[in-house]
Amino acid sequence: MSTAVKAGDELREAIDADDLIAASHILSDIAPQEIASLFEQMESYPRAVAYRLLTKDRALDVFEHMDTAAQSELITLLREDEVTSVFDSLDPDDRVELLDELPAKVAKQLVRELSPQERDVTAVILGYPRGSVGRRMSPEFVHVFPDDTLTRALERVRVRGMESETIYTVPVIGTSRGLEGVISLKDLFLMPSDDLVADHMASPIFAFADDDAESAARRCVDRHVLALPIVDHEERLLGLLTIDDATRIVEAARDEDAARAGAMEPLRRPYLLTPVLHLARSRIVWLLVLGISAILTVNVLQIFEATLEQLTALALFIPLLTGIGGNTGSQAATTVTRALAVDEAQPKDVGKVALKEVRTGLLLGIVLGAVGWLVATPVFGNGIGVVISLTLISICTIAATVGGTMPLLAKAIRVDPAVFSTPFISTFCDATGLIVYFMIARAVLSI
Amino acid sequence: MSTAVKAGDELREAIDADDLIAASHILSDIAPQEIASLFEQMESYPRAVAYRLLTKDRALDVFEHMDTAAQSELITLLREDEVTSVFDSLDPDDRVELLDELPAKVAKQLVRELSPQERDVTAVILGYPRGSVGRRMSPEFVHVFPDDTLTRALERVRVRGMESETIYTVPVIGTSRGLEGVISLKDLFLMPSDDLVADHMASPIFAFADDDAESAARRCVDRHVLALPIVDHEERLLGLLTIDDATRIVEAARDEDAARAGAMEPLRRPYLLTPVLHLARSRIVWLLVLGISAILTVNVLQIFEATLEQLTALALFIPLLTGIGGNTGSQAATTVTRALAVDEAQPKDVGKVALKEVRTGLLLGIVLGAVGWLVATPVFGNGIGVVISLTLISICTIAATVGGTMPLLAKAIRVDPAVFSTPFISTFCDATGLIVYFMIARAVLSI
Repeated sequence: MSTAVKAGDELREAIDADDLIAASHILSDIAPQEIASLFEQMESYPRAVAYRLLTKDRALDVFEHMDTAAQSELITLLREDEVTSVFDSLDPDDRVELLDELPAKVAKQLVRELSPQERDVTAVILGYPRGSVGRRMSPEFVHVFPDDTLTRALERVRVRGMESETIYTVPVIGTSRGLEGVISLKDLFLMPSDDLVADHMASPIFAFADDDAESAARRCVDRHVLALPIVDHEERLLGLLTIDDATRIVEAARDEDAARAGAMEPLRRPYLLTPVLHLARSRIVWLLVLGISAILTVNVLQIFEATLEQLTALALFIPLLTGIGGNTGSQAATTVTRALAVDEAQPKDVGKVALKEVRTGLLLGIVLGAVGWLVATPVFGNGIGVVISLTLISICTIAATVGGTMPLLAKAIRVDPAVFSTPFISTFCDATGLIVYFMIARAVLSI
Repeated sequence: MSTAVKAGDELREAIDADDLIAASHILSDIAPQEIASLFEQMESYPRAVAYRLLTKDRALDVFEHMDTAAQSELITLLREDEVTSVFDSLDPDDRVELLDELPAKVAKQLVRELSPQERDVTAVILGYPRGSVGRRMSPEFVHVFPDDTLTRALERVRVRGMESETIYTVPVIGTSRGLEGVISLKDLFLMPSDDLVADHMASPIFAFADDDAESAARRCVDRHVLALPIVDHEERLLGLLTIDDATRIVEAARDEDAARAGAMEPLRRPYLLTPVLHLARSRIVWLLVLGISAILTVNVLQIFEATLEQLTALALFIPLLTGIGGNTGSQAATTVTRALAVDEAQPKDVGKVALKEVRTGLLLGIVLGAVGWLVATPVFGNGIGVVISLTLISICTIAATVGGTMPLLAKAIRVDPAVFSTPFISTFCDATGLIVYFMIARAVLSI
């Protein structure tokens, strides 16, 4: 990694100094994937300069390996013929992803300049709803038939494989394009014989084209297949989702979840290259929403203002109690959000989850309550000690239960569970926790 | 997915009813990967029963597809000869992962029962430190030479490929086992000719065996290669990390990060199958650590107790202000932790990050401060409005800066940056925020 970083620094210096010969020399020593990685970290202008220094074949290779955001920035800085040549050579699924990213006007023009056959393939993919796996699959595959011999099937892959994005997973197709199985190139290649494909193929793991891209991709990744066949509702084969595209989709979904759990929108570019204004924009909406909902806590405290005036010491524990409530809630929310993402739990499990979290929260509350009583009593007296202890027990039970069930409810009403996780739950637990705290304090201390 | 869920329910019912013929019938209709997925969701005992109903070949296939936790549970319930046969047939890297998981006594016995050749391969992998990619690579690969013709290289892969975990990425090895390049089976297979391998191979992206498994795996995934060559410090080839193993490593690392960001330890089993006591254990340590550090906020408030007694209204805003500070801090921490994980930032960028976050935090603070003044002034008067507004500006600036730089400092001192993210930063920002709040209040309101 450190050699790549060094090459990146040298490249930038060479371009800053307009020393294009040195720059081109540096580029010729690096693998295309590494160059793509360097380019993703560079500013738009030096990147476009460096890109023009690559030979045509390498340039295409590098382009394919860059992420979509960097691709779309680069495209706007290239000459028209350069753009067409790059775009023409992309795999159809990568092309669709890039089209989704580009301004509509640029996108339209690019599709117009494709060869009619290429345009057809793109159109097939574009027929599926945004976010569906149909958009991300490759419609170019080579298939074999169940009554082929293994030798004939292997020959078929050899002849037709050139057009296919992957040849390592070979779908087996029966009458009227129905998917009947898959066979790996490894099996075909290592033991060609007169056995029939039907006797050696495996039953396929597949997804429907209008399935959510994220869940199809997770299926591909979790089940360790190199390509997932994508079918229509009559189980006719439409394309393949390859593992590298699947991994990319899963990673993007996890980035989005992590950003939401951190109360913001995901960034589209590398952090260090994102301008301050963009950073602020990705965060401000959530802060405002959370800030406004936090006004609830001000209202709750206003109700108990008289109690506070009588015993100011109660105010000392507010951040401690709301902090613990927030942490307990976000622990439960994080666990359940993940279980939902990997299909380990469904909204219908809400009863089981609630029962589990009530018990977990109660257990945590009892432990923390005991510690709280031991710590608070010597300094603030037994009255306050008991209040803190009872409040911790209640807050932990409520926070764990709410934190655990909210993501399931969000999923049931088709809202991204990650949106409902940590930050919202913290705010909710803050307000509820304060009410519980002051009610317990009034009852125990008779104020 | 719903058919798989249905099959799972049917299977459990059949086993509960001791109807093993029905169970075996259900199992024969499902792909091994799907069965593995079902098994991961089942309790230990019915899983062991169901496992014995599989034919030997399918049983091995299913075992390989299960996660390590489920494998290690199953192993303890099988007869000795069953265990040995399963273990013998695992790929060496999967075997090492399982050995890491098993109780030391069971693990030792298993290694003793391996064939000498198998034991050698396992030992090679076990020679690398825990957490290194050497532990996770497959040492069984087929290689070709730069001066082979493509036709001869293809033949070599055909003859020797059986022993190799993957044959789709073929490493090219020069004198004294030095890695010189890689060539894909697709290239070899689709255009065999008398051209030399040296003229068609690509320069390799590789990792060193003692590199951290996570960063090597991320390299494989980010660069979209199906297998990453692993070399020693003389760049001699030792093995390959395949993309499915790489994806598994990256996913596990992300689960760990997500759990840490939610203030707990990651779970080893599916959520719904994790007992309440394990759930509580994965959470309690963090809650105690955070709770004890939150005592700091009680101490801070004690210092300002006199101010609070004079103006109880100040207490009303405590949860609001600490909540916004916590959210701003965790936004910055989440962004920078992710940038570190994907190598978009290094600890040496701490200056750049700090500058970026000071400006972002200030910008966010000004917007929120303005909103805060508008909302607070009509109800609580201009004095309190100004205090809230100035506090928000300061808290947001401090929280963003601390939240952004803490993960870099953690990484610099070799602590997992995720550990330092959201929860700790919240607690720190709470205490600092309260000090700032009361100091501004005293100055502005002259109390």
